[in-house]
Amino acid sequence: MKIDGDMLIGATRLHGAEGDIHAIDPRNGERLAPAYGGGGPDEVARACALAAAAFDAYRETSLAARAGFLETIAQNILDLGDDLIERASAETGLPRARIEGERGRTVGQLRLFAEEVRRGDWLGLRFDTPSPERRPAPRPDLRLRHIPLGPVAVFGASNFPLAFSAAGGDTAAALAAGCPVVVKAHSAHPGTSEMVGCAIRAAVAACGLPEGVFSLLFGAGSSMGTALVAHPAIKAVGFTGSRRAGVALMATAAARAEPIPVYAEMSSINPVFLLPVALAARAPAIAAGFVASLVLGAGQFCTNPGLVLAVGGPDLDRFLTEAAAAVAAAPATTMLTPAIHAAYDAGRLRLGAHAAVATLAEGRPAQGPFEGRPALFATDAAQFLADPVLQEETFGASSLVVRCPDVATLRAVAERLDGQLTATLQMDAGDLDDARALLPVLERRAGRILVNGYPTGVEVGHAMVHGGPFPATSDSRTTSVGTLAIRRFLRPVCYQDLPQALLPAALRDGNPLGLARSVDGVPIVAPAI
Amino acid sequence: MKIDGDMLIGATRLHGAEGDIHAIDPRNGERLAPAYGGGGPDEVARACALAAAAFDAYRETSLAARAGFLETIAQNILDLGDDLIERASAETGLPRARIEGERGRTVGQLRLFAEEVRRGDWLGLRFDTPSPERRPAPRPDLRLRHIPLGPVAVFGASNFPLAFSAAGGDTAAALAAGCPVVVKAHSAHPGTSEMVGCAIRAAVAACGLPEGVFSLLFGAGSSMGTALVAHPAIKAVGFTGSRRAGVALMATAAARAEPIPVYAEMSSINPVFLLPVALAARAPAIAAGFVASLVLGAGQFCTNPGLVLAVGGPDLDRFLTEAAAAVAAAPATTMLTPAIHAAYDAGRLRLGAHAAVATLAEGRPAQGPFEGRPALFATDAAQFLADPVLQEETFGASSLVVRCPDVATLRAVAERLDGQLTATLQMDAGDLDDARALLPVLERRAGRILVNGYPTGVEVGHAMVHGGPFPATSDSRTTSVGTLAIRRFLRPVCYQDLPQALLPAALRDGNPLGLARSVDGVPIVAPAI
Repeated sequence: MKIDGDMLIGATRLHGAEGDIHAIDPRNGERLAPAYGGGGPDEVARACALAAAAFDAYRETSLAARAGFLETIAQNILDLGDDLIERASAETGLPRARIEGERGRTVGQLRLFAEEVRRGDWLGLRFDTPSPERRPAPRPDLRLRHIPLGPVAVFGASNFPLAFSAAGGDTAAALAAGCPVVVKAHSAHPGTSEMVGCAIRAAVAACGLPEGVFSLLFGAGSSMGTALVAHPAIKAVGFTGSRRAGVALMATAAARAEPIPVYAEMSSINPVFLLPVALAARAPAIAAGFVASLVLGAGQFCTNPGLVLAVGGPDLDRFLTEAAAAVAAAPATTMLTPAIHAAYDAGRLRLGAHAAVATLAEGRPAQGPFEGRPALFATDAAQFLADPVLQEETFGASSLVVRCPDVATLRAVAERLDGQLTATLQMDAGDLDDARALLPVLERRAGRILVNGYPTGVEVGHAMVHGGPFPATSDSRTTSVGTLAIRRFLRPVCYQDLPQALLPAALRDGNPLGLARSVDGVPIVAPAI
Repeated sequence: MKIDGDMLIGATRLHGAEGDIHAIDPRNGERLAPAYGGGGPDEVARACALAAAAFDAYRETSLAARAGFLETIAQNILDLGDDLIERASAETGLPRARIEGERGRTVGQLRLFAEEVRRGDWLGLRFDTPSPERRPAPRPDLRLRHIPLGPVAVFGASNFPLAFSAAGGDTAAALAAGCPVVVKAHSAHPGTSEMVGCAIRAAVAACGLPEGVFSLLFGAGSSMGTALVAHPAIKAVGFTGSRRAGVALMATAAARAEPIPVYAEMSSINPVFLLPVALAARAPAIAAGFVASLVLGAGQFCTNPGLVLAVGGPDLDRFLTEAAAAVAAAPATTMLTPAIHAAYDAGRLRLGAHAAVATLAEGRPAQGPFEGRPALFATDAAQFLADPVLQEETFGASSLVVRCPDVATLRAVAERLDGQLTATLQMDAGDLDDARALLPVLERRAGRILVNGYPTGVEVGHAMVHGGPFPATSDSRTTSVGTLAIRRFLRPVCYQDLPQALLPAALRDGNPLGLARSVDGVPIVAPAI
């Protein structure tokens, strides 16, 4: 499809007047047409006003209609065909197969949310039976449902041009909950965002929804994002990106006349614990799996394993020898943007120059302008704990191994880690006691705990948690991947003694929508109707 | 029981060194013995360290053990007998019957949470079935449970010395979720707090729990509260009180190295909409019910009806005549503290002196030193919208009637209201269309919507929402009353490919704890075991 460089403000196309934004093909540094104009406060206000105007109508669409809308978006994205794959690949440097996989994930995510919407359990319906005869005061008729928060601002991520961008997880969850969405596209892939935005816009029209259900804005720098989060019509924010930008949005949201929730997924080094028996039994295999996870996608995953913790000794040495060899053999690969590449190189060089850090291996030298070389570093527990800089994320295929004198120190280091998206144990049956002692520490620090896998690869499902304590995210009570994410955008409302004719259909007597509910605290699954 | 004026830091009694805090009997202004010493940073640190040390053990208590603990607290509170009733009445000026009722509510709340804990649905267990054969990558085994956030700081409220204080809703919900609790007692009722704190402490000991599960601190001024919220071991905050204090705690929590959730219930004027047909049919009855709700408990409820909206005309005039007569006949009643009385009087006089406000009635003059006179004021819609001061809460038995020219204006005023705990409709069948048009507006602005009742009286149940958009609370996604409040203190954790021996019991194959769960998105109620 043809792309024009326009913002999509409801049904209106509009070329922003503030600056020229060009995607860059990181494989060769070339600027890609067309130019995208950034929007200003007027466009933010217009998109937000449309979203607010659409809210009441959109949130009362039937579950079937809303699910159909999500499925229409999914089909429209597929219908973009190869144009989308090629553009996304050009804008990110990610190989075609990866983009195809990501499209599958994005479409699957929308369809999973459609199923979830239809099932309706997320409405969290609760009924307390009235007791008019109770003394001294009668017990009222109380019925509870969850309603959406209101228009949501979503910030596209650099590293997933499809799955965490215009029609990504945050958008899917917010639309599923009944919230209109205003997306601020990531400036690294505006063409991909425009294409996907058009797919969503076409679905809005095809489903007869108010145009304000979806808008797509562009803006270089941080001013548009700040204006968007500050706008009174916006009631929640979804963000995936750097800690600095995420913390800035948290501050903007907290400073509003009406503070709003921010779901920012920011920074995680995803510790991998190599327990002694497993390390003794299979150091080479663990090393191979670890390096494969480390270099996947040029290391540009939120769940990239940036930290390895193990007890020093011959078993760890074997692991390090194998891992260093694998890293040294790994090619440099094109990173997403020149800025990400520059930040990675700076971080990698800084770590290599750190007095307490040894460089174990570097990958093959870069061939292209924005290729990142994988790197493996080592330090020991005391030095790691002495300098908080060593806990900072280096976004890319860089990892730091921390040698501990014993398992107790491994646990002590775990106690000192910042919040994480994931924590991984490599363990065998003989490690069970050590693993049991570590588990509560890891639960307090991470949203997902894995055994004998690697953290990259985040399954989209019902039981996934892609979240965790700060600074991994701004709000550990939720997830940004999986159906549980719909809860981010909901709040409970109680209806006391409403006449049947005024009650929302989901709460009426006789359960006309056939939904799951709990009555006086006892859950009742949905009847087959 | 004898009270000593000590803080309860785990199992240790400790008399604070910072200043003397005395309860005052607001019925006569007399200082009540004993003196309470305020704690400082050392006591905060000690209570928080004990709470952190207790967390892992407490959160893994069995559901039965934790429920038993809550029930033991309830019984211990009942066992305090008349001493508690008398002390609470002396410290608050609330009549004996009200305190007895509040004790029943507090004990009932603990027992309801005990049932909820036993049922275990709140663990939100989710399973995604693995698919080892899936290509290109196998689908992992994902299992999700909710775990508690960590130690919680709870601030006692002035207006509910039992139900929203040391063993109040926030404490009950946090303990139910598995969080140790550090209470900062309200300085208005330290003796009541010490008694109840001892009841909790005795339950901790009787149930063999680590002492850090509960601590009780005293402190005049705001410095101890600030230190408590700033302490790294604290992972969430529950607060009921003024908007100023709540917003200050939000700022403290947001400024931490690790920001944490604050559940502050602050300020609400609880609009009551009198729809035309109902007003025509039964103005006198509505007026009687409204004034009864207004003056209940000297107007010192978060849900006190501080705002009435109606279309001007003879029907509203009839309502106003009746309501004004009832208010004029109402006695002044003792308020909770000298400071609350002073603030109420200042607010009432300010409103009476406002150029756009007419005083319709004042209650009978005060006889005692800290009695508040009920008051009823009126203004019109244009003037109400012109001055945001008219939306500010006057804590006490004061209410403002806003005359609107028509129902459309009623709705327009509703659109401009701040967030509220409640919104009430007085309506008859003939008002249904107007009510339907108002409902979405009210849903966006309030946590609970009532028809033909009055907002005071917050039922403790499963379907209650005592919450709402800012400034009613700091977080509209939750409730501070009812079993749904347990969610405030939980976060999801995903376990990927864990061996059975390492999995928490709730997530093991065969459902050994007999809990409700969802499998691949399909809910399965708890088996009868």
